[in-house]
Amino acid sequence: MENLNSTEELKISLLSLNEKELSELLEEIHPADILDVLRKEEDVRGEILGRLPHWLVADILEEMDEEEQTEFLELFPELEQYKIFNEMSSDEQADLLSNLEPEEVDRFLDNIDEEDAEEVKELMNYEEDSSGGIMATEFVSIRESMTVKETLNYLQTATIEAETVYYLYVLDEDEILKGILSLRDLVTAKFDTVIRDIMTEQVKSIPVNMDQEEVAQIFEKYGFQAMPVVDEKGEMLGVITFDDIIEVVREEDSEDMYRLGGLNEGEIIDGPAIESVKSRVPWLFINLLTAFLAAATVNLFSSTIDKVVILASFMPIVSGMGGNAGTQTLTLIVRGIALGELTIENAKKVFFKEALTGICNGLCVGLAVATIGYLWAGNPVFGLVIGLAMLLNMSVATMAGYLVPVTLKKLNVDPALASAVFVTTFTDVCGFFFFLGLATMFLKFLT
Amino acid sequence: MENLNSTEELKISLLSLNEKELSELLEEIHPADILDVLRKEEDVRGEILGRLPHWLVADILEEMDEEEQTEFLELFPELEQYKIFNEMSSDEQADLLSNLEPEEVDRFLDNIDEEDAEEVKELMNYEEDSSGGIMATEFVSIRESMTVKETLNYLQTATIEAETVYYLYVLDEDEILKGILSLRDLVTAKFDTVIRDIMTEQVKSIPVNMDQEEVAQIFEKYGFQAMPVVDEKGEMLGVITFDDIIEVVREEDSEDMYRLGGLNEGEIIDGPAIESVKSRVPWLFINLLTAFLAAATVNLFSSTIDKVVILASFMPIVSGMGGNAGTQTLTLIVRGIALGELTIENAKKVFFKEALTGICNGLCVGLAVATIGYLWAGNPVFGLVIGLAMLLNMSVATMAGYLVPVTLKKLNVDPALASAVFVTTFTDVCGFFFFLGLATMFLKFLT
Repeated sequence: MENLNSTEELKISLLSLNEKELSELLEEIHPADILDVLRKEEDVRGEILGRLPHWLVADILEEMDEEEQTEFLELFPELEQYKIFNEMSSDEQADLLSNLEPEEVDRFLDNIDEEDAEEVKELMNYEEDSSGGIMATEFVSIRESMTVKETLNYLQTATIEAETVYYLYVLDEDEILKGILSLRDLVTAKFDTVIRDIMTEQVKSIPVNMDQEEVAQIFEKYGFQAMPVVDEKGEMLGVITFDDIIEVVREEDSEDMYRLGGLNEGEIIDGPAIESVKSRVPWLFINLLTAFLAAATVNLFSSTIDKVVILASFMPIVSGMGGNAGTQTLTLIVRGIALGELTIENAKKVFFKEALTGICNGLCVGLAVATIGYLWAGNPVFGLVIGLAMLLNMSVATMAGYLVPVTLKKLNVDPALASAVFVTTFTDVCGFFFFLGLATMFLKFLT
Repeated sequence: MENLNSTEELKISLLSLNEKELSELLEEIHPADILDVLRKEEDVRGEILGRLPHWLVADILEEMDEEEQTEFLELFPELEQYKIFNEMSSDEQADLLSNLEPEEVDRFLDNIDEEDAEEVKELMNYEEDSSGGIMATEFVSIRESMTVKETLNYLQTATIEAETVYYLYVLDEDEILKGILSLRDLVTAKFDTVIRDIMTEQVKSIPVNMDQEEVAQIFEKYGFQAMPVVDEKGEMLGVITFDDIIEVVREEDSEDMYRLGGLNEGEIIDGPAIESVKSRVPWLFINLLTAFLAAATVNLFSSTIDKVVILASFMPIVSGMGGNAGTQTLTLIVRGIALGELTIENAKKVFFKEALTGICNGLCVGLAVATIGYLWAGNPVFGLVIGLAMLLNMSVATMAGYLVPVTLKKLNVDPALASAVFVTTFTDVCGFFFFLGLATMFLKFLT
């Protein structure tokens, strides 16, 4: 990768070059590389930013999350802030404002031109993680009666500030989406061709209130670089581009992983400890409650343990293995739901396959543990008890691993959320109940 | 979404339309939609495929994974297979062949023209998950001396089979990458402009042997739609496009989640149970071994448990909460490594923050459990013992949650792989050791 590691060099040129040289450099350099310098070199951050044109600062801001954007914007005097804000794309403007205080929001909206302000206000009305929330309202629209030559001339003269010009959208007078033309089809067509004859009329469009995870799945299915967003009437409202989608995918995947791991998606890896404590303690206390369920179950059988103390040694094996089997299924199902691999068609099939898998795994592991238990305790009945308990526990564990996330999904709760807690509690309680219950039944053979 | 749910309609038209109508329909329809029909309607699959032109079958194949591709190809007579294969892009051809027997591979390569065959052979030499393994060799190259008009004419006349023509690559006589020009810049420039004057010379390129996860991070950083792949000499070998990257991201995220959940990435959600058993049992047995470590630890203290049986009831709480705290940190770190958020710069900071978090969480949870333990057992010393054990266990748990994946990473092992096993074993063993050890120390106050 060229000049990915030359932030030091870049810093020096950004500070020392004269205006003419600088503007030449800025034509060539990617905003993300300048951002690397700004992040590294806090002491000269203001100085460098001061030397950059507003449009570039805007581009750089668009590489950040909202918190960092505000932090950087505040380095500028108020009037400058508006000029920079003005250069940002409408979706980025909306995201930025959605993190500010109402009076702050008005302050910005009052200082950009009304039409844009209206657009931004509209965007702010959409759910943050819906298609309306991630779309941009800048796109290039043409009419079906234009020729290729006319379109090219239009693109050459019009100042294009569209998110993407790789697709041209053919709209009628009422802004209804009639067709779509890729820039590729445009440049490979003869100059006198009429748009109507080369545009695609079977346009795939995204409804404005679709959940972003679903939007991502559609992008993945069709592999488009951008897709138009329309309202009920078919009026085109904006575009979603592939780079939004990569972000969505990362976001959704992180959310699932965090939730499976008992974290809140908000947590920042190198944030202050106090934040981590605040965000994790609630999870831990939920787990604590459920852990006491397991403890209570064990307590039911304390007289048995009192008589056969070796049971205590095998308790971690029962709960541990049940938890593993359950987590395996849980992970598969949660991921399957996220990727749309678990459908209404194959749901039954998957459930029975998981149940069968649980039983088979239970048999393998159960046999192994039974043998070891027999040798360890020198008592075949003990082997039978622990083996049977493993078989039962691992069988119910896989079923729980399927049923918990699927049920949450049915209740419109994120399947990743709290699934792990439920499944492990379930396997702990069942596991101890099977193990110690059986031991109590066969007590006279164990003492 | 238009005709996403009209597979039934589509099926009928695909079967009934006459040739002319059909070819008109096929111009408009997306291969992914036809694939939906083919997947659903196994009985007419062959019939429909027979009616489609080779280029379209190739496009449809490119929507599938290798297994499905072979399954579909085998529906065609041998000669047809070659014609379809010929229409596929070089990277897809390479992926397909990499799953076939050597003699099969030769059979295909002997039946496409030599130049292409050479390209495919070269591609097959690259690591499957490296930049070379995911790049396509079709791209549009131009010379810096051409004008915009000439370039447009060239694009109009040349039959473009490039993966993406949204970027044009400016190469010299030795195929060395000199600059890059986006189609956007081309169409927005005047016809008589010379490419040299509008091309970007600061080209970001990907070295041919870079790991695909790193490639994905670069794409996310710069938000390009496509990036050129070059060798040491700067000779351009191919392009990687954003849709490859979305696949990579999903793949890498799934891999991490699966490994954290104790699954092999190969597992298919609705595959046969026997496959799931085969792929999960090894994991379960590794876990079983480690579970016996925990059991052995408990066994060390069986005489203590024999005297104070309530200890057994609280064992699940110690191991459970330690596991939760460890998993929280583990998840954060594994994800942080994958997203490049954990860097050399902030590593120390993150470690101490996690350690501090563990101690604070340990204090909160420890206090709660100590109180409950005191009330439950009616013995303040028991409360002290369990509370102290929780504090110690949760503190080491978070440190383990950091150190295990970071160490694996240092050893060039995937941090997600087996991390969970190590961490939970560690917390179980430590937890029981702290808890039962302290109980033994204070034994005379507990009986």
